[in-house]
Amino acid sequence: MLYEISEKAIRLRREGKKIIRFNMGDPDQQTPNEIIEAALKAMRKGKTKYASSAGEKELRERLAEIHDTSAENIIITPGSKWAIFSIMYLMLGDGGNVIILSPHWSAYELMAKSIGAEARFLRTSLDSDWKIDIDKLRELIDDKTRLIIFNNPNNPTSKVMDEKTVRGLVEIANDENVTILSDEVYAEISFVKVKSILDFEGNHIFVNSFSKTFAMTGWRIGYAVVNEELAQKMMKLNQITMTNVPVFIQHAALKALELRDEIAESMREAYWRRAKIACDILSKSKLEFTKPDAPFYLFPRYKNLDSETFAFQLLDRGVAVVPGTAFGGYREHFRISLTVSEEDIELGLKKICEAIS
Amino acid sequence: MLYEISEKAIRLRREGKKIIRFNMGDPDQQTPNEIIEAALKAMRKGKTKYASSAGEKELRERLAEIHDTSAENIIITPGSKWAIFSIMYLMLGDGGNVIILSPHWSAYELMAKSIGAEARFLRTSLDSDWKIDIDKLRELIDDKTRLIIFNNPNNPTSKVMDEKTVRGLVEIANDENVTILSDEVYAEISFVKVKSILDFEGNHIFVNSFSKTFAMTGWRIGYAVVNEELAQKMMKLNQITMTNVPVFIQHAALKALELRDEIAESMREAYWRRAKIACDILSKSKLEFTKPDAPFYLFPRYKNLDSETFAFQLLDRGVAVVPGTAFGGYREHFRISLTVSEEDIELGLKKICEAIS
Repeated sequence: MLYEISEKAIRLRREGKKIIRFNMGDPDQQTPNEIIEAALKAMRKGKTKYASSAGEKELRERLAEIHDTSAENIIITPGSKWAIFSIMYLMLGDGGNVIILSPHWSAYELMAKSIGAEARFLRTSLDSDWKIDIDKLRELIDDKTRLIIFNNPNNPTSKVMDEKTVRGLVEIANDENVTILSDEVYAEISFVKVKSILDFEGNHIFVNSFSKTFAMTGWRIGYAVVNEELAQKMMKLNQITMTNVPVFIQHAALKALELRDEIAESMREAYWRRAKIACDILSKSKLEFTKPDAPFYLFPRYKNLDSETFAFQLLDRGVAVVPGTAFGGYREHFRISLTVSEEDIELGLKKICEAIS
Repeated sequence: MLYEISEKAIRLRREGKKIIRFNMGDPDQQTPNEIIEAALKAMRKGKTKYASSAGEKELRERLAEIHDTSAENIIITPGSKWAIFSIMYLMLGDGGNVIILSPHWSAYELMAKSIGAEARFLRTSLDSDWKIDIDKLRELIDDKTRLIIFNNPNNPTSKVMDEKTVRGLVEIANDENVTILSDEVYAEISFVKVKSILDFEGNHIFVNSFSKTFAMTGWRIGYAVVNEELAQKMMKLNQITMTNVPVFIQHAALKALELRDEIAESMREAYWRRAKIACDILSKSKLEFTKPDAPFYLFPRYKNLDSETFAFQLLDRGVAVVPGTAFGGYREHFRISLTVSEEDIELGLKKICEAIS
């Protein structure tokens, strides 16, 4: 059904029908010009050759400074997705299993499946404000559990874990000798402060991306902060797969970091306004939802909704959303991505409200 | 020892010593300006978003035209290396083995090892002009053999297979229901015509890159021509790993194809002159070698040489080469890469001749 929805959306757009794209995890903003110019400058300087599979030293040192670690712990990857895939590939190849906090970004599950690793899901629910049941997590862990993966802030709920929750997860992981992989790609533009996995003791993994903060999705650049042993393994895997992220793209990323505070603040403000508009409209509807702590998703529920049929039919009203089944079987939910203009948010959400009334 | 050689080279360069880098598979030429400008134009047009994991339709259609196939058979990858890795990952995951024609690019062997697949080697020798023994190949194949991989023209020998040899390989592969993966990244700038795997019947795989022909190594863009079923699988693997090659890089590649004849000819001519100079010098030495059919390597032999010790010591004379052990245990050989200026070729080869005399 997910396939049919996406096919229908493509067909309708081809026919020239306007579709409000609440289904995209891709910011509508353009990459800031200064970043593009930095890439160009590097290209013209000849930064178009093979390079280190760990990433450029200058970029790794700058990121190490930001995260209060050493450059040896940083690996630059073509998107955070490659970082996550390669870590799973390296850590789960021997029959290990992975616990994924759910609802979850579907890529985590598909990666585990591709690698042939068992994925176990720790479900959370809107009814308990997406609270994580630490005892249930303990039950899921066995001697083959190598990784616990979560996304903080979460896609699709936009929930940020409180400090106590992260601490609880870290304590169990440390007790059981399991590694946490915390995917924090929405953290820098979060509305509330995110307690990073890097603030805790233990042998855990932090993953980040330039995609969301800097509207650089298509540039394909992210990174992981890992221990030196894993960093070496990731570098060696990079050597026999994608070699290196183009150096001129790494120079663009360096420029992005230079402008970080300014860009992140303007992104955060824009998404905050959008979230406010969206919450105002949805709170007058029959949809249940939690207010987002971070950009850029809402994950409302409508009791007894079949979100796949709903998403398919909603396209006829010119609105695309992602059914909740794509995030681990949340059939009554659907995901709204606020990566469209304020006008389109108002228009699109009104159409959604009409559709469920 | 390979590690020590590379470390020593880095140390000497850091100390400011001039090293003639005969060890690099990276053209010394710069990416042509028109290609850089095409990337910039695409960036400014906003081609910086998520895109198809198969590659841009326009680029796939242009490549399909060149290779007389359909766009559905083309997958764009971040370098030909990723294409080869992902094909091995998809085809060898179930306990299959791969036959690699040797001497070989070390990445093939490292990929098989990483995936956990057995690699079998069909050795060729300078003594028989690197001729492939078709009967020996047949002996290596069993019911778990899924792939035969070769590089044509070959790195490190720069030998091009004659049509009869390719036909012989194809016939065995078709008989035994094994897929050939032909890595033809040096074919477009070859001195002699290369009979491509695509010119033969059978379910075989062609891999190519923009790196060598267009001096675009660091851009990370290549492609595979495969059947539609494998194309779908590769696209799905791309979706959960690196997402897409940056679209602006794909636009640069389109510009490269537009200038293809002109750039390839000038590259070929430059390497031809270099190869001639190198052969003239080496033919006066005690080194045995076959004349290159293509850019940009020479793989000479010196009887009873320990090429690792030789390469290590040669660095003190300011010349870096790769010992033959890196290509499948060819201890008496070493690889010279003609990716330096004509002056440096003369100078470097004279130092090599001195070292062995």
